[in-house]
Amino acid sequence: MTAPKFKKIVIFGVGLIGGSFALSLRKAGAVHEVVGFGRSAANLQQARQLGIIDRIGQDIAAEVGDADLVLLATPVGQMADIMARIAPHLGAHTLVTDGGSTKSDVVRDAYAQLGSRVGQFVPAHPIAGAELSGAAAAGADLYLGKKVILTPLPENPAHTVARVQAAWQACGANIHLLTHTEHDAVFAAVSHLPHLLSFALVHDLAQRDNRDLLLSFAASGFRDFTRIAASSAEMWRDICLANREALLKELQAYIAELNRMSTALAAGDAVRLEQTFHAASELRSGWTEK
Amino acid sequence: MTAPKFKKIVIFGVGLIGGSFALSLRKAGAVHEVVGFGRSAANLQQARQLGIIDRIGQDIAAEVGDADLVLLATPVGQMADIMARIAPHLGAHTLVTDGGSTKSDVVRDAYAQLGSRVGQFVPAHPIAGAELSGAAAAGADLYLGKKVILTPLPENPAHTVARVQAAWQACGANIHLLTHTEHDAVFAAVSHLPHLLSFALVHDLAQRDNRDLLLSFAASGFRDFTRIAASSAEMWRDICLANREALLKELQAYIAELNRMSTALAAGDAVRLEQTFHAASELRSGWTEK
Repeated sequence: MTAPKFKKIVIFGVGLIGGSFALSLRKAGAVHEVVGFGRSAANLQQARQLGIIDRIGQDIAAEVGDADLVLLATPVGQMADIMARIAPHLGAHTLVTDGGSTKSDVVRDAYAQLGSRVGQFVPAHPIAGAELSGAAAAGADLYLGKKVILTPLPENPAHTVARVQAAWQACGANIHLLTHTEHDAVFAAVSHLPHLLSFALVHDLAQRDNRDLLLSFAASGFRDFTRIAASSAEMWRDICLANREALLKELQAYIAELNRMSTALAAGDAVRLEQTFHAASELRSGWTEK
Repeated sequence: MTAPKFKKIVIFGVGLIGGSFALSLRKAGAVHEVVGFGRSAANLQQARQLGIIDRIGQDIAAEVGDADLVLLATPVGQMADIMARIAPHLGAHTLVTDGGSTKSDVVRDAYAQLGSRVGQFVPAHPIAGAELSGAAAAGADLYLGKKVILTPLPENPAHTVARVQAAWQACGANIHLLTHTEHDAVFAAVSHLPHLLSFALVHDLAQRDNRDLLLSFAASGFRDFTRIAASSAEMWRDICLANREALLKELQAYIAELNRMSTALAAGDAVRLEQTFHAASELRSGWTEK
């Protein structure tokens, strides 16, 4: 596959996601110039020193008019504001994509803020580790063999989807297409709920007087179950709120499942417990991350 | 430390826990002869071929009378039966320990089945991985640097606790003392509840028509959170039932925590969500398995 060519890319949020996007496209020889915007001047300077971006952007209006591609790689809570600021200045051929972990809220923001330019925005969610952050964590191989989900809008002309897809493919990613509603339902179940459950378990322990004793006997099962509870509180607050409806539905289903298990346990129902555990064990043993 | 000397050890259940105990004591030069009993003739033969045991036991009465130490390393559900069978034949100097993951139930069984011999039984719980099973999974280093919790009984003379402690120390383990009630409360919180929660999440997904789609997008967070859901259904059924009361208490506390988070999420209470996640993230980031 021939790498696409982008003369100029503008990245908002030059951290793990945004920085790795830039480095990956550079490695593929797919980009000529990268301009970075962000809240932290120190992080942007580091990004420039690390060769992730060529320039630190000063003037949004001046930078996005002639850009080929704009990547929004900030926390999703900040995207509406950035969309509002770029909308009046987007060139006719400038495409926009994002790296947000939720899609329905970003799409809602896009309709509200981009107006008649919304067809230039192709939403994306790269499935890549998010435990590290900042430009220093970025790498040219982050997306290699990873999934990137695009949730195109009815307003997207086919060539805009193809070109955004080509950019993520140039990063080494495998592309999957879902609607934004499907996307959010899937990730509520397999990502957002597990994070919330892991936070809840550790928070429950954190409130206890004997937490040090408890933690001193925690072992590998606890370690793996709670690894994601070390994630960024701010980021996961935003994700949970952004995907609130789908997540609440999953959470209620899970609480109902726990109530059924509590009933079986209280009744000493060995058969029911074993059936439940067995169905889980069979499914999990047969699953491997692809 | 000089290794203790055991002329003869009898092991019931020569799997990961029992087999590793034998191999570890052999490596330490602490045992002369190991006799194994178990439900599976094939596993016992393999244990003999692997040099884990010297002989397959045929007659419990004949073997436990002159044994220095008996290890019960079967699932906890089978221990009462084995205790009943060894009780009439235990020598006056034969000590008994076990490898069960729950302690209050095993102690209850010991009082019921061992009668006046109960002072010869020093309950133990080695904290070592349990995802593999069978003699083939056993190794001489399984307990190296791991915790073994002893929950001595008021009836144990001090020298019996010291000698059983020395046996586990000879396996390379670090010894901790708790009461059996403390033990079960601690492990309900940091081990049994997380296992039940992980089983519940995967079981919930297993019931759905779109489970293949969901699992195809599951990533590293899901992978780690659900690793323990691949554990043995039979073993965890027994553990959950054996520690039913403490586990029910933990489960109810956790459901209450989830209901609070559900309320915060439904209300869009960003501050409450972030506080909860932050407390968890701080605690988990500062914790490392010792």
